[in-house]
Amino acid sequence: MTSGSFERMWAELLPVGRSASSGGYRRFAWNSADAECRAWFEEQARSRGLTYELDRNGNQWAWLGDPSGEGAVVTGSHLDSVPDGGAFDGPLGVVSSFAALDELRLRGAEFSRPLAIVNFGDEEGARFGVACVGSRLSAGVLSREQAFELRDADGVRLPDAMERAGHDPGAIGADGDRLARIGAFVELHVEQGRYLTQGQPVGVASAIWPHGRWRFDFHGEANHAGTTRIEDRRDPMLTYANTVLAARKKAKLAGALATFGKVAVEPNGTNAIASLVRGWLDSRAADERTLDALVEEIRQAAYERGARDGVRVELTRESFTPVVDFDSPLRDRLAKLLGDVPVLPTGAGHDAGILASVIPTAMLFVRNPSGVSHSPAEHAEEPDCLAGVAALADVLEDLACQP
Amino acid sequence: MTSGSFERMWAELLPVGRSASSGGYRRFAWNSADAECRAWFEEQARSRGLTYELDRNGNQWAWLGDPSGEGAVVTGSHLDSVPDGGAFDGPLGVVSSFAALDELRLRGAEFSRPLAIVNFGDEEGARFGVACVGSRLSAGVLSREQAFELRDADGVRLPDAMERAGHDPGAIGADGDRLARIGAFVELHVEQGRYLTQGQPVGVASAIWPHGRWRFDFHGEANHAGTTRIEDRRDPMLTYANTVLAARKKAKLAGALATFGKVAVEPNGTNAIASLVRGWLDSRAADERTLDALVEEIRQAAYERGARDGVRVELTRESFTPVVDFDSPLRDRLAKLLGDVPVLPTGAGHDAGILASVIPTAMLFVRNPSGVSHSPAEHAEEPDCLAGVAALADVLEDLACQP
Repeated sequence: MTSGSFERMWAELLPVGRSASSGGYRRFAWNSADAECRAWFEEQARSRGLTYELDRNGNQWAWLGDPSGEGAVVTGSHLDSVPDGGAFDGPLGVVSSFAALDELRLRGAEFSRPLAIVNFGDEEGARFGVACVGSRLSAGVLSREQAFELRDADGVRLPDAMERAGHDPGAIGADGDRLARIGAFVELHVEQGRYLTQGQPVGVASAIWPHGRWRFDFHGEANHAGTTRIEDRRDPMLTYANTVLAARKKAKLAGALATFGKVAVEPNGTNAIASLVRGWLDSRAADERTLDALVEEIRQAAYERGARDGVRVELTRESFTPVVDFDSPLRDRLAKLLGDVPVLPTGAGHDAGILASVIPTAMLFVRNPSGVSHSPAEHAEEPDCLAGVAALADVLEDLACQP
Repeated sequence: MTSGSFERMWAELLPVGRSASSGGYRRFAWNSADAECRAWFEEQARSRGLTYELDRNGNQWAWLGDPSGEGAVVTGSHLDSVPDGGAFDGPLGVVSSFAALDELRLRGAEFSRPLAIVNFGDEEGARFGVACVGSRLSAGVLSREQAFELRDADGVRLPDAMERAGHDPGAIGADGDRLARIGAFVELHVEQGRYLTQGQPVGVASAIWPHGRWRFDFHGEANHAGTTRIEDRRDPMLTYANTVLAARKKAKLAGALATFGKVAVEPNGTNAIASLVRGWLDSRAADERTLDALVEEIRQAAYERGARDGVRVELTRESFTPVVDFDSPLRDRLAKLLGDVPVLPTGAGHDAGILASVIPTAMLFVRNPSGVSHSPAEHAEEPDCLAGVAALADVLEDLACQP
């Protein structure tokens, strides 16, 4: 195969939205870096003679063949990032999709079904707090009304952010007709753990762990840090700290994951005891029973410590995604086609996880030597990326070129 | 006495810079609320026929008598606030100063020395991170060069903020000649603990506890919260949480205070393990040996846990104020004059603490029934405030009206 098109596209995207100070990416839904990525996607479509479409929810499509034809094969991923995320999470899937199409054209493949490459909008949820907004809206699992309520940290509403970026928010909502015409969706993604470090560079996904986000609000009492006696304090930072440590300990015991990575403190002054500490818990487990039990244990630890600290604890489930088992015939077909590659689960949510409820869906993972993701240090070796492109080309040929 | 002038001034200041959502104040150095407070101060000076001066460091002065005369008696406090602070911390001293002057004029007092009321700029350090900037600059304990390096959270430099607010930063620096002409400084302040709840409404300060701010930087590794195995993590939130709990435990054992009230997290994403957690420690004790030993114990706890978490800990002392013992002849004179009122120490820093090294200085405290301060709930009862005005008038008459 030719590796040239992958390398060229990769180099084009690399500087877009990259922070000079952190080296990480700040491509958030509808911001200027996101707009640059979108312009790049459209240019890739047009320069290949593909039919470009922007759907009602801001997802971008590049069609080979008739966009209104039935049984389409779709591949793609997303181009946005978490705050200071890496270069691979998302873009690797989009760039590999175009490179796989280039490869199939070189092979002289003849397509029997429409093929599309997609860039789903706002996968990471970095700006508005809900992940996979583009695919959720299209699949009807996020309603238009819910989407209209979303606000970013500056109070900007999602529809206003869309409008400022030149996209009419008036039509957002479920897009069932479009999804009904898709016969299969395959998303290629960099692996975010180290399962593949033990063998082959490409694997197939079995399932996505159930996962969710819970917000803990610890309500104490603001007071002067220099004059308030310890026995007169109601300091929510203590309850928060204890909950962080309890979450780690209980997750380890359960063989699951629990992380506090985001905090907001009021008033957040050096010499003021906090009045409010908000901590966001991200938790995941192999099955929902384990996950439910883990979150309940963390909740209990928070309430018990809160009672000792004079701190009121409020718990809100902000999002929850049940376990996703990918379509097993498709999964088995891909694993066999690629030479009995590893089949592995993941703890991370993806647009593929959303679409799996309405379309036969599969995922390919490309090896990540350190397992690091959502970080500037996220990395995949170029030969592994090219192996991913070749595997995706094989898969698309198998799915879209059968007579 | 007439309480009318106190009540009128109090009502005028009350709405300035108050947040509708929190009910707390956001009067930060050189912001628009601060400008309104400053305009109010100037108006108070002019309407009483006092000579108004803005010094090189942005401190405001209102003079009765010759500003260049020797042995002046000065009273006052500050008008800025911590984030979402209360109405009393600072403004009570400034308003009481004007009210005490009104009271002395009603009494027909004849002044033998110049009298001034002062509003020190940027006492709380809420915006630029260093407390008592106005008095520190004047006393020469903060250099012009250090002040020029200060930046707010948006990266705005202190001199640029001054300039935007219409104050020329070109002349900031030590103001020894001005301070040398001051014979005594008395600052009235709301109490920030509950010492006075046991008896009289007004007390005199004995000393300010040594205190400081230390920044802990916990360096870990950003990673995906949903896919990184617990054994592969270097999560600085754990080290931070453990340090918060250690600080509280060790402070309690030492009979001292240690508080983490301010945190900054990078990247601060719900589904990302943090790469960096910064936590600010505010710590205070009755003497420096106890304080040093306490901070050393907290440092050790942080380093030990950091080694277990794979987290590098960096400790920076951002500020330190040694113990301040107020001028004992002045302190004893005031306590006796006011009828053997309580003499009490405080854990809070004040402009009076800065000036005490160069000018005979005293403080009066007004009772705070809950002890709450640096919070919208901060409160003093009006009869206690008026008792404070009367006490301050007695003190100023004693100091400035002797033949």
